[in-house]
Amino acid sequence: MNNIKQYVQENKERFLNELIDLLKIPSVSADSAYSQDVIDAANAVKASLLDAGCDFAELCETPGYPIVYGEKTIDPDLPTVLVYGHYDVQPADPINLWDSPPFEPVIKPTAIHPEGAIFARGACDDKGQMFMHVKALEYMVRTNNLPCNVKFMIEGEEEVGSASLAWFVERNQEKLKNDVILISDTGMISNEQPSITTGLRGLSYVEVEVTGPNRDLHSGLYGGAVANPINILSKMIASLHDENNHITIPGFYDKVEELSQEERDEMAKRPFSLDKYKEALDIADVSGEAGYTTNERNSIRPTLDVNGIWGGYTGEGAKTVIASKAFAKISMRLVPGQDWEEITDLFAKHFEAIAPKSVKVVVKPHHGGQGYVTPIDSIGYQAAAKAYTESFGVTPIPVRSGGSIPIVALFEKELKSKTIMMGFGLDSDAIHSPNEHFGVFNYLKGIETIPLFYKNFVELSK
Amino acid sequence: MNNIKQYVQENKERFLNELIDLLKIPSVSADSAYSQDVIDAANAVKASLLDAGCDFAELCETPGYPIVYGEKTIDPDLPTVLVYGHYDVQPADPINLWDSPPFEPVIKPTAIHPEGAIFARGACDDKGQMFMHVKALEYMVRTNNLPCNVKFMIEGEEEVGSASLAWFVERNQEKLKNDVILISDTGMISNEQPSITTGLRGLSYVEVEVTGPNRDLHSGLYGGAVANPINILSKMIASLHDENNHITIPGFYDKVEELSQEERDEMAKRPFSLDKYKEALDIADVSGEAGYTTNERNSIRPTLDVNGIWGGYTGEGAKTVIASKAFAKISMRLVPGQDWEEITDLFAKHFEAIAPKSVKVVVKPHHGGQGYVTPIDSIGYQAAAKAYTESFGVTPIPVRSGGSIPIVALFEKELKSKTIMMGFGLDSDAIHSPNEHFGVFNYLKGIETIPLFYKNFVELSK
Repeated sequence: MNNIKQYVQENKERFLNELIDLLKIPSVSADSAYSQDVIDAANAVKASLLDAGCDFAELCETPGYPIVYGEKTIDPDLPTVLVYGHYDVQPADPINLWDSPPFEPVIKPTAIHPEGAIFARGACDDKGQMFMHVKALEYMVRTNNLPCNVKFMIEGEEEVGSASLAWFVERNQEKLKNDVILISDTGMISNEQPSITTGLRGLSYVEVEVTGPNRDLHSGLYGGAVANPINILSKMIASLHDENNHITIPGFYDKVEELSQEERDEMAKRPFSLDKYKEALDIADVSGEAGYTTNERNSIRPTLDVNGIWGGYTGEGAKTVIASKAFAKISMRLVPGQDWEEITDLFAKHFEAIAPKSVKVVVKPHHGGQGYVTPIDSIGYQAAAKAYTESFGVTPIPVRSGGSIPIVALFEKELKSKTIMMGFGLDSDAIHSPNEHFGVFNYLKGIETIPLFYKNFVELSK
Repeated sequence: MNNIKQYVQENKERFLNELIDLLKIPSVSADSAYSQDVIDAANAVKASLLDAGCDFAELCETPGYPIVYGEKTIDPDLPTVLVYGHYDVQPADPINLWDSPPFEPVIKPTAIHPEGAIFARGACDDKGQMFMHVKALEYMVRTNNLPCNVKFMIEGEEEVGSASLAWFVERNQEKLKNDVILISDTGMISNEQPSITTGLRGLSYVEVEVTGPNRDLHSGLYGGAVANPINILSKMIASLHDENNHITIPGFYDKVEELSQEERDEMAKRPFSLDKYKEALDIADVSGEAGYTTNERNSIRPTLDVNGIWGGYTGEGAKTVIASKAFAKISMRLVPGQDWEEITDLFAKHFEAIAPKSVKVVVKPHHGGQGYVTPIDSIGYQAAAKAYTESFGVTPIPVRSGGSIPIVALFEKELKSKTIMMGFGLDSDAIHSPNEHFGVFNYLKGIETIPLFYKNFVELSK
C-alpha cells in the first residue's frame, strides 16, 4: 500500500478543490435561515460517496435534516467499518472577526502550517476531516486496496445535538451493523506527535430565562426597588462555582470517575507548555478547578460554562432600562460516570432553587450526551495506532479529549461496537471560532493514514 | 383666566393631532440610523413655537443635535420663564413587545385612562409633556393672557446625556437669562393626587468590557481551563452588591446626604400600596437595599443596575463556545451629595481592581449628572402648587423622584436659577418601555395648568 503516498500527491489539487467546493456551502444547522444550504451539503456528500465508489448512497429522511448513508460491500464475510462524520457546521459569527469570509475558502500559510491551511467554517470540524474518509475510499476502490466492507453515515445535526441521528440509529441497527466505527472529528497533539482520542466528555446544554417585572422599566423610577433580572442572573451564575472553581450544584460530582494517580501521571507525560498555551490565547493566567492541571481541567474534569448571555439594551449608546427578562445559554462538560440527563435535572432543580422570590426562572434543557472511553487494548485502537506509526513514523499517544461527540456513547449502546477516533486536526485550528482552518498537510496525511487503518484492522481481525 | 378650560375644549382635537404628527417622527438620539429624523423633529418643534406666537425661533447649532430656541418678550421689566424640554426619544426596542408600532400613534382607553391615552414612543417622555408648554403659550398669546416673558430651550440629546446642552448653556448665559426654569419631564402620583417633583437622582452610566482569550474558543477543548469572560463578568457584577443589597464600591456612600427621620416620615405619608405595586409589575416580591422602604429605595437612595448585558452566542439553537469578550452597560442612580464624576471614577477603579488576572477589563464612562433638590418655600414651587390646586382642586404633594434630569443641576450652576418640575405623567405610562403612552386627560390638564403657573409666578414675584 506504499502507492498511497503517490496517489495522494498525484491527486492533491483535486482533493483540495473538491473539499473547497463543499466548504462553500454554509450548512449552519443551528440557524433555520440556512436550512436549504444544509440540504445542499447533504446532496453534495451523497454525490461524493457515489463518485468515490460506493455501491449506492442515499439521503435517509429523519425528523430533522437527512442522514447521508452510503456503502460498499466486497464480501459479507469480511469485517465492516462504519464511518461517521457530519456535514453541518457551527454558526460563523462573530463574522467581523474573520480575516476572510467563512464560506469563501482560501489557502494561506500559517506558523504551524507553512505548507498552507484551508480557512473556512467547517474546514476542520468536520467537513475536512469527514472528506478525508471519502477520498481514502476513492483510493482503496480505484486501486483495489479496499480490504473489507465499508458503510458511511454522515449527519447534519452534530452541532445541534444529533437528535435525528439518535432517532435514525435506534431504527436502523441492522443496516448499520459493523465491526468498528471510525470517526475523524477530534484533534491530535501536533503534526510531529500524533495522538488518538480515547476519551470524550459528555455534555448537558441548557438555556435559562429569568423574568422580573412584566415589562421593561425605567431604571430611575424603579431602580433599587425591584429585582433586576440581569443582576439576579449574574448572581445566580456566579454562585454556580465556589472560590475553588468547584461546581456548587448538589450531587454534580457524585458519579464522577476519578482517575488513579498512575493515570494522571501518564497524562502528565504529554508534552505541554503552559507559557506557550497562555501566549497563544494572550491571557496572563489560566483559571480552573483547584487541584488539577490545565490538561486535567479540560479533559478528565467536568465543567460549567456560560456560552451566551443577553438581556436589556445592547445597542449603540445608552438606555436607562431595567429589563423584564435576562437569558443565558449554559453548557456543562461531563466525564465518564456522569449521566447527562441526570445532570440536566440536577442543574434545573438547583437553578430553580437558588432563584430569589423576586424573579421567575425557566430552565429549558437543550441537548446532551454521555462521556466515553475507548480501551487502548482493543483491535480498533491497535489498528489505528499502527496506521499512525506507519504514516507519521511516530507512535501516537492516547489522550482524553475535553470535547463531546455525544453519539459515540449512543453507538456503543445501540450498535454494540467500539468507536475509534482518528483525529487529524490541531487545537490551533480554531474550530467553533473565527478563522477556523485545517492544515493541508493534515488533510492529506489523513487521507494517507486511513487506508492503513483498514489494512491493519482486517489483519488484526483475522 | 377661567376661559382656559373652554379654550382647551374647543381646540382639543387639534392639540391631539398636532402632538400625534410630532410623535410620528422617530427621533431616537441613541441610534445614528435616526439622525435625520432627530433633525426633522427639531424643525417641527421650531415651527410649532412660531405658530404658537414666539417672536422668533431658531435651531442653534451644537457639537451634536441642534437646540431649538424660541422666545416671546412682552416687557423686559417683567419676569422671564425659561421652558426646557427635549424632542429626542428613547430607542423603541424591544419592538416586538409593542401592541402598536411605536411611531404610529394611536389613542386607546386604558384602566387608568378611560378617556384614552396616546400610545407612542415619546408620548409622555418628553414630546407630549414638552408640547403642553407650546400649546399653553399659544393660549396665552392668542387670548392676551401671557403675563411675562418666555423662552423655550428644547434639546435633542436628553436621552443620551445632554452633552451638547451643557456646551450650549455654558456659552449662552445671557441669552438664557431667566427668573425660573419650568420643566415637564417627570410624573405625578395620580390624576386624583397631583404631585410636584422636588428632588432628582444623579446618574453615572458606564459600559464595561471583559476580555479573556484572544478569540472565541471551543468550550469542550478549553472549558474549565481558561477564564470564561461571561462567567467572570457575572461574578464581578454579582459582587457589586452585598447580601443586604448595599453597593460594595469603596467610598460609594461617603457623601450621600441621609434624610432625617422627620423627612422620611413625611415621605411615608405618600399614598402607596405595596400589593398594588407588586401586582402591577407581576412580581412576587420587591427587592432592594435593606433598611429602606420601596419608595425610599427608588428616590432617596443611590442604586446600581445593569441596563444591558451581552456576550457569546445569543442566536437560535446552541453553540458550545467560550466567548473572547463579554459586555455590560451599568448605570448608577445618585443622590444629592454624590458627585457623578467622582462616583464614575470610584466605579472604574473598583471594577478594574476586582478583575482576576485571567481577564482584561475596560471601563468606558458614558455620561452622567448630579442630583438636585428644589426648596418647597421658593416662589416657583409656591406658584406651581397654587396652579395645580386651582386646576385639580387638590393640593399637590412634593415628592423626590428616582429619575435623573442631569441638566437641572447644570442650570442652577450656570444660570443661577431654580427649576420647577411640573410633571403630568404617571408611573404607569411605561416611559422607556414598550407601549409608552400619555393620558389625554393628563395632556389637556397640563395645557390647562401651565398658564396658571405663569399667572401665579408673576403675582408672587411682585
